[in-house]
Amino acid sequence: MTGLNELSATETLARIKSGETTAEAVIQECLDRVVEREEIVKAWAYLDGDQALEAARAVDRGERTGPLAGLPVGIKDVLDTADMPTQMGSPIYDGWRPATDAACVGMMRNAGAVIMGKTVTCEFAGSYPGPTTNPLNANHTPGGSSSGSAAAVADMMVHAAFGTQTGGSVLRPASFCGIFGYKPTYNIVNRAGLLFAAENLDTIGLMARTIDDIDLVASVLLTRPLTEAARGEARPRIGLAQTHLWDEATSEARFAVEDAARKLSDAGADIVELRMPESFRDHPSIRNLLNDFERSRVLAWHAANHRDKMSDTILAQVDNGYTISWDQYRAALQQADAGRAAMDAIFKPLDFILTPAASGEAPEGLSDTGDARFQGYWTILHVPTMTLPTHTGPNGLPIGVQLVGPRWQDNELISWCKWATEILIG
Amino acid sequence: MTGLNELSATETLARIKSGETTAEAVIQECLDRVVEREEIVKAWAYLDGDQALEAARAVDRGERTGPLAGLPVGIKDVLDTADMPTQMGSPIYDGWRPATDAACVGMMRNAGAVIMGKTVTCEFAGSYPGPTTNPLNANHTPGGSSSGSAAAVADMMVHAAFGTQTGGSVLRPASFCGIFGYKPTYNIVNRAGLLFAAENLDTIGLMARTIDDIDLVASVLLTRPLTEAARGEARPRIGLAQTHLWDEATSEARFAVEDAARKLSDAGADIVELRMPESFRDHPSIRNLLNDFERSRVLAWHAANHRDKMSDTILAQVDNGYTISWDQYRAALQQADAGRAAMDAIFKPLDFILTPAASGEAPEGLSDTGDARFQGYWTILHVPTMTLPTHTGPNGLPIGVQLVGPRWQDNELISWCKWATEILIG
Repeated sequence: MTGLNELSATETLARIKSGETTAEAVIQECLDRVVEREEIVKAWAYLDGDQALEAARAVDRGERTGPLAGLPVGIKDVLDTADMPTQMGSPIYDGWRPATDAACVGMMRNAGAVIMGKTVTCEFAGSYPGPTTNPLNANHTPGGSSSGSAAAVADMMVHAAFGTQTGGSVLRPASFCGIFGYKPTYNIVNRAGLLFAAENLDTIGLMARTIDDIDLVASVLLTRPLTEAARGEARPRIGLAQTHLWDEATSEARFAVEDAARKLSDAGADIVELRMPESFRDHPSIRNLLNDFERSRVLAWHAANHRDKMSDTILAQVDNGYTISWDQYRAALQQADAGRAAMDAIFKPLDFILTPAASGEAPEGLSDTGDARFQGYWTILHVPTMTLPTHTGPNGLPIGVQLVGPRWQDNELISWCKWATEILIG
Repeated sequence: MTGLNELSATETLARIKSGETTAEAVIQECLDRVVEREEIVKAWAYLDGDQALEAARAVDRGERTGPLAGLPVGIKDVLDTADMPTQMGSPIYDGWRPATDAACVGMMRNAGAVIMGKTVTCEFAGSYPGPTTNPLNANHTPGGSSSGSAAAVADMMVHAAFGTQTGGSVLRPASFCGIFGYKPTYNIVNRAGLLFAAENLDTIGLMARTIDDIDLVASVLLTRPLTEAARGEARPRIGLAQTHLWDEATSEARFAVEDAARKLSDAGADIVELRMPESFRDHPSIRNLLNDFERSRVLAWHAANHRDKMSDTILAQVDNGYTISWDQYRAALQQADAGRAAMDAIFKPLDFILTPAASGEAPEGLSDTGDARFQGYWTILHVPTMTLPTHTGPNGLPIGVQLVGPRWQDNELISWCKWATEILIG
């Protein structure tokens, strides 16, 4: 029998609502799963079972209501929680308790969700990894920096989780762990209470095991109705974007995109091979420049007072940030802004873009969370992106494909993702 | 004799550096001024003289160095400080101590500045006022929401202070108190550690008593060299923007702009009367929509848990935020983005724009901080803006004029402001 922890969010909430089960039973099964698996997966920076069960019982008593009443959710540990520590993957914040919930956490709570705990993040949502392993093979990275969120969702410990993406920190771990990952348009999910990595890029995103679950949680975060799937007879115009990174993807990642394009074409889509602007080749380097410049400002106090508690990885970024001149930074901001306008024009005749979600399967080893360029290329454009867990590689690990929509067309992208999921996953 | 607290930042730092005075003496004179005036001005939410003097002595001992070593600075109380309470103008945060400094505070400290204390802010940097009075006439508002920062700088308690602007919260109080106020291009002064009001608008800005002081502090914040004044023989092309708000400005505010235009024209400038796009008439209402929608998300936890500690003013905004649909919000974001592109085009043949800084003098009474539309019209465009304290109204209170530059051309705007200050103020 499928455990309550294994069901989709949508199905779980329906069963709670109908009285077929209770929120307490759902949370208990999730906690049982954590007990069973946490020693290997190491997804959680903080989890208090009693606190979660009490929140669930409040739902069952009718004291907490809303569209997500009883839904277990994980929160990346760079987002403030009023009743749990928030430690940023850094010993500088050992045991730190914020005054309030982050905006997105408060909204989830107000909608009745049960905050299960805080998920492991790379140090300051960067690239220095935490202890989390890939739930499908503990010798492989889960990806990062939203490592714990991806692993907890993939391992059936929670139904959904928040991540954040500055380079590739939502879509890459989602792809590596075989789940759906959604990075919305920049600055539409409110970031109050998020410790910034680089504020011109940081975007709060979602992970879940079904596209309907992504849509459901997004509908609460964006306070909008659920999205309808594009109809079966739809004939979208899809841009196939290999980009200049194509040859650096593994053959299996390239196969996944080509195979998906074939199947969507068979289903009626019109596939257009895109030639991206030459200037977009700079995206990985511009993204790194913005990242290092802005990180060094965010961590000005930290590096002055707690250098000994910071990894060499993050210190290298902070120190590099101060070698970048204001003129270089300004030029990067302007180039990024011009790229966004160019992207709007590229999208004019298209419904969405299809491109690799990551370089391939999750690499072996836990010291590196993988190549962020395949996601960061799009992050800098502020466009909404989604990875669908469509394929499997030679090591038996998942490979996703990435769908990209025009800025602010998040509903439309989700609608097309529902359509594509039906065809590619079923 | 001019007190050390009354000198410009530039002159004060030169005297400390030359050994003519000490940082301790500077801070002591500022503290003396606070003791003398605070009962009337009420600029400070938190100030610990001993702590400030100790930081100054560390400068004098050579333990703290940097381009601002010994400069007394005030911090608006919505910006985190690791060693002082941060109370957001709200009893919800009574006595609250953050874990770290905000990015901009850490950078000032690393540059040797002495953080004097936290300045009074309207509740959550909104419109519900704190106790601060206008130092030029205590029966008049100092403007808001950066009320304490403007009053402290104008009253010679500190040489410079941070404000934040979501509508008009830097330029309006600066204009009302007769000092320089600078709102940089959106998202170039790092906002980590700022409690957001509305993140698509919030910008950290500066207040000081000379344009050179603005430039000096900005050079540290943006890690760039000082800006040269545009040369005396410069012949800038200036756009005169009356906007649809012109008739709602007082005759003295209109006179200030017309008089400034005349004097700049006499100095060689080419004045072009601008007709702003019809769609820009929506700026005040779009700004309010974005403000209320985003505030309601920022304060999701607060309103759910501490409604009794929030003013009716902020609750009305929060409650209104949830009546705005996602489609309305998205349309407002898109219109704002299109407006920024339109503004880039308008600026093509221009060096800067001249427009009223505020509706006129500071209104009488402390229950309202004045009309934010004259500043908010530009805030939504993400362009850099500056108010220069050029004129005086019929009540003997200051009236500023506003200079506006193209996005990211902050250096160029400051350069023109130095040129214009020389002509208009001397």
